[in-house]
Amino acid sequence: MPEPAQGHLAVVGLGPGDPGYLCARALDALHAADTVIGYRAYTEQVTEFWPDAPVEAWPIGAEVERATEAVRRARAGERIAVVSSGDAGVYGMAGLVLDVLYDLGWDGARDPELEIVPGITAALAAASRLGAPLGVDFAAVSLSDLLVPWETIERRLRAAAEGDLAMAIYNPRSAGRPESLDRALRILREHRPPLTPAALVHDACRPGERVDLTTIGDLDPTAATMTTLVVVGCSTTRRRGRHLVTSRPYISRGATPPTPLRRTAT
Amino acid sequence: MPEPAQGHLAVVGLGPGDPGYLCARALDALHAADTVIGYRAYTEQVTEFWPDAPVEAWPIGAEVERATEAVRRARAGERIAVVSSGDAGVYGMAGLVLDVLYDLGWDGARDPELEIVPGITAALAAASRLGAPLGVDFAAVSLSDLLVPWETIERRLRAAAEGDLAMAIYNPRSAGRPESLDRALRILREHRPPLTPAALVHDACRPGERVDLTTIGDLDPTAATMTTLVVVGCSTTRRRGRHLVTSRPYISRGATPPTPLRRTAT
Repeated sequence: MPEPAQGHLAVVGLGPGDPGYLCARALDALHAADTVIGYRAYTEQVTEFWPDAPVEAWPIGAEVERATEAVRRARAGERIAVVSSGDAGVYGMAGLVLDVLYDLGWDGARDPELEIVPGITAALAAASRLGAPLGVDFAAVSLSDLLVPWETIERRLRAAAEGDLAMAIYNPRSAGRPESLDRALRILREHRPPLTPAALVHDACRPGERVDLTTIGDLDPTAATMTTLVVVGCSTTRRRGRHLVTSRPYISRGATPPTPLRRTAT
Repeated sequence: MPEPAQGHLAVVGLGPGDPGYLCARALDALHAADTVIGYRAYTEQVTEFWPDAPVEAWPIGAEVERATEAVRRARAGERIAVVSSGDAGVYGMAGLVLDVLYDLGWDGARDPELEIVPGITAALAAASRLGAPLGVDFAAVSLSDLLVPWETIERRLRAAAEGDLAMAIYNPRSAGRPESLDRALRILREHRPPLTPAALVHDACRPGERVDLTTIGDLDPTAATMTTLVVVGCSTTRRRGRHLVTSRPYISRGATPPTPLRRTAT
């Protein structure tokens, strides 16, 4: 009698949504899957570059059911890919899938085999559009209080501001919580000067991308949507032309003046 | 008379070093370059998967000269790709290249055209190996005090610990500063219980990868090298089998018990 098939469960971050930012490992995991399971907006990203993809689109908000169904089918021998946006390990499905796997007595390695494929999280996509605002140390904080108490979010914003960390702010605002970015800005303004560089990056690295360069004093919270990533600089972040740069002070230390440039200028 | 060629300057993060984790945009930028400039360890990563790549290997520590030479040649009409590991915008070359460009009066868009291609930074590569330790909010902090004063690093570690942020600690230890991870751990242990999950991920997503799961109480700083990324959990990070998970409490809130699993178990 043949052994039952070994199931396989891949958790794949789709990056910003443009296939040009997907790594080969992610593409391989999608192509190897019998079924690609995800929230509809993400399975649609897959069918955009692979129209015949065997996707199963789920409604928003059914994360536990989605993870549970993925695990159930992988344990039964299917090859399943669970997709989420950006990096599946950052505000994505990887943690929940692991929770469900272990809650069901999974051995940590096989039945099913698990692969987590990292992806370009929104902070990195947005930062690449701005230049290098997260070039040194930074914090990623989500303003969604659906599953994390607002007090915890506020504590983290305050800590990051006090610690002079640059910040990538996820989920800055939604119809259900129009005030969250306002509230976050009030905290940041207590700790950083109003001219601190900031930016809203809408739809980073995908069609419709737009960048608003601003400061924490001038930032208009109503300009943020669910597809906006807000970047806030630290004390060493500078606006340079249409870019934001948080660089380590190679040049300001004067250690090595850029002499070759002067030669070409003559 | 023909117009002089429009130069192009791409800053490309090579990710963890395995081409399977490189996106198409990064590969395209490398293939389109007349010259790929980088620290030798990174240009060797390129020639590993593309033996004929037109690389120019530079010694370590010549970052300003390297960026300046790249800018000079791109302004003269060449197509140059500057490579660094992980994401070029996170402890990489993007900020320095921008500084040099603007210091030379660049217009922010052309002469040369600039493209920054994001990549899988070490925090994401390491986290994917561990499960989802950075699944909610987190901070990235480098312990290298070569260009950032140690007081600043300490302030950021303290803030991240006080703010209950999970942490990705870059450059934890080198021959020149064998004590830096010890000093960081002393700070973390003041704020978090000794059983707080932690891990050392060596060479994440590349040959020789190894994972040490531990706690901040037991973590052995001497096990870290320059290719180790240290992950420290927050108060909601749990060790599950051979994984670390910082998940939003979908299940613990009891909102949606995973009923389909019970059905398949019968």
